[in-house]
Amino acid sequence: MSERFFVREMAHGMTLLGQQMDQVSSAAMTLVVPAGCAHDPPDMAGAGSIACEWCLRGAGERTTRQLNDALDALGCQHHESVRSEQVVFSAAQLGRNLAAVLEIVADILRRPRLEEETFGPSRALVEQDLASLEDEPARKCSLLLRERFYPSPLGRCAYGTPEGLAAATPQRLREHVAEHFTPAGSILAVAGNLDWPALGDLADRLFGDWPIRRPAAPVPQPPAAGVTHLPKDSAQVHIGLAHAAAPIGHEHYYAARVAEMVLSGGAAARLHTEVREKRGLVYHVASHYHSLKRHAGMFTYAGTRPDLARQTFEMTVAEIRRLGEGVTDEEIVRARTQLKAALVMQGESTSARANALASDFYHLGRLRGLDELSGAVDSVTAEDVLDCLRAFPAQDFTVLVIGPESVDMGVLEA
Amino acid sequence: MSERFFVREMAHGMTLLGQQMDQVSSAAMTLVVPAGCAHDPPDMAGAGSIACEWCLRGAGERTTRQLNDALDALGCQHHESVRSEQVVFSAAQLGRNLAAVLEIVADILRRPRLEEETFGPSRALVEQDLASLEDEPARKCSLLLRERFYPSPLGRCAYGTPEGLAAATPQRLREHVAEHFTPAGSILAVAGNLDWPALGDLADRLFGDWPIRRPAAPVPQPPAAGVTHLPKDSAQVHIGLAHAAAPIGHEHYYAARVAEMVLSGGAAARLHTEVREKRGLVYHVASHYHSLKRHAGMFTYAGTRPDLARQTFEMTVAEIRRLGEGVTDEEIVRARTQLKAALVMQGESTSARANALASDFYHLGRLRGLDELSGAVDSVTAEDVLDCLRAFPAQDFTVLVIGPESVDMGVLEA
Repeated sequence: MSERFFVREMAHGMTLLGQQMDQVSSAAMTLVVPAGCAHDPPDMAGAGSIACEWCLRGAGERTTRQLNDALDALGCQHHESVRSEQVVFSAAQLGRNLAAVLEIVADILRRPRLEEETFGPSRALVEQDLASLEDEPARKCSLLLRERFYPSPLGRCAYGTPEGLAAATPQRLREHVAEHFTPAGSILAVAGNLDWPALGDLADRLFGDWPIRRPAAPVPQPPAAGVTHLPKDSAQVHIGLAHAAAPIGHEHYYAARVAEMVLSGGAAARLHTEVREKRGLVYHVASHYHSLKRHAGMFTYAGTRPDLARQTFEMTVAEIRRLGEGVTDEEIVRARTQLKAALVMQGESTSARANALASDFYHLGRLRGLDELSGAVDSVTAEDVLDCLRAFPAQDFTVLVIGPESVDMGVLEA
Repeated sequence: MSERFFVREMAHGMTLLGQQMDQVSSAAMTLVVPAGCAHDPPDMAGAGSIACEWCLRGAGERTTRQLNDALDALGCQHHESVRSEQVVFSAAQLGRNLAAVLEIVADILRRPRLEEETFGPSRALVEQDLASLEDEPARKCSLLLRERFYPSPLGRCAYGTPEGLAAATPQRLREHVAEHFTPAGSILAVAGNLDWPALGDLADRLFGDWPIRRPAAPVPQPPAAGVTHLPKDSAQVHIGLAHAAAPIGHEHYYAARVAEMVLSGGAAARLHTEVREKRGLVYHVASHYHSLKRHAGMFTYAGTRPDLARQTFEMTVAEIRRLGEGVTDEEIVRARTQLKAALVMQGESTSARANALASDFYHLGRLRGLDELSGAVDSVTAEDVLDCLRAFPAQDFTVLVIGPESVDMGVLEA
């Protein structure tokens, strides 16, 4: 596919990004606003998630019902999510319906009705989602690990806390939305079948007069870190561990992604081979890289039987540490090939591309083409991976265990 | 995208399907063999899942290690799954690597090593996966509902039972693989950047001399059906209910899919509006259509707090039943638009298209183009939906509840 990128920064700080893709009929949109749960008021954890639900319940001239009808009638498949730093509205539809969907999205962001009677059900849903985590210990383990690993409140779980949700009121939520749904830091990324000049005109009309607000950014505090055991009468022991990695944009970033692949990127990756396949210790064990703007981590999860938990933990830690002793040239070549193939396949999806544009701009302030990405991946050597792991060694693990008992972690002292 | 379909039925009963797609570099493959878990011997439930793990542990000239290395080195993203009727091997890679991946897959299917020492870890993994279901009650609810709904053993849970897994031996598994990994009923579907004539030649070389075996098909017995409560000290009550629907290929099939959209297809769909949005009763409530070759169902799931379970159940059943009173023209138009937009977007993904080719051929014995699908969807009227719901009324629900207590189901008697 040819790559035709467009970037336009609007005067008030919103950025418009585009990638025109040939031979597709769809156009996907990723719109992010800087209202993620790290911005929740300290006594109202979960505010962003309630806001995200509530904004969809009527906006502009449309009631909830009319809003939902209109999006469905446009064949729009949309999804909202609340991340640490951003609220994300993703939508995929035919290119010819993009403008009409964007009109509705502008209403949702700028003119949500936020009516008293829809507040209760919006909050009830977030309460239900928070409660449902109790029945999904693997997911709970991953979310709470992130909370303990990143500087507070950057890793906060988007569903908040029972107390935070209880403290939310319609008036406080309205103020929260007014303050944080702002053009500065917002990004609208579109990929697929699109008309860039027309999209620019539309964005000017829909967002050009969006008032600027500059809310204070949260001031990160040291993370909780350490080792935590949450007792639960679960069938499996859910083990999560995290250690620091190079953020996107860091000189060691591409080496970190190659290291991730060697550790956990495919059937031949070390964790899969040593922990899952040879010993059958766990059905699921994997590491994945995750980056915020200034902090990143390698997050590893394993779920296993209580009687196998210690062995699983020790094998997993040993494999993570062993990376620092070096990787083979075969592993490097394989990791590069996998990363490049994945890039090409993602490049064929309008949704994946819209997400990538928004992510690139947020993290780097610019867009990366396939040539740049492939070249950067190809240039990573075994020595680069070692340098990366010296700069970000496998130590100071943050560990979270959910299960009937904790796990002997003597290996961490070794 | 233009649609260029190819079909070739080989003498021994394997079918080769292709769709050439312009402007993509990837080629996705879906290979199905008729060795799904419905074929597990009655006293060895879970045999198919062990076989699927075991076949990946060395095949042809390659050890486990070499097999995994080779697939990763080709940038192949692969996934294996055991369904009721079939084992599915899905793989996505660059088109130029398709042939090399297919060579390896042919080894896996035809020349798995099935060595004694890799049997134990293979079975241990399936045991772990079965055990992990205890910590995922929502998933367990969906799987066991299907088991009770479909004629036995067609809805069987692929992970089997502790007894079935314990009864498996290397020798019995080898016989199972030899009997069920056969060309008759196997389908190889490829979509994307491909060279059809070359693919045909390759398939002839790799599969042309695959010996024919014709294992007896399982004879379906009446389903367990009815209402089941599995007590569990979970935070939420997990409610699953199922009722019969028109299978793919049935004259009412497209009307059934439109009905599914009206009930649960988007933000404006009835279940979402009435149960989730207006009342905030549940975070997740959805119906989805699922079809085997001769049986199909509409499966509905809701997870909620114990004190809201009765109300949730009653509202959900009421909405499913209310469909039979008619749908509006607006709902029909919206459902059609959503279905058609989804079709176009799926049509841009090589993986989605490879799956669709294999599914079409399995269920219908032929491939459907976008024009046919769009036309069929467009022709569904409100009257067709009513006819469909008269033929497949919302009654005789199979219900499965996992939670601290069951739910008052008096509404089912109404």
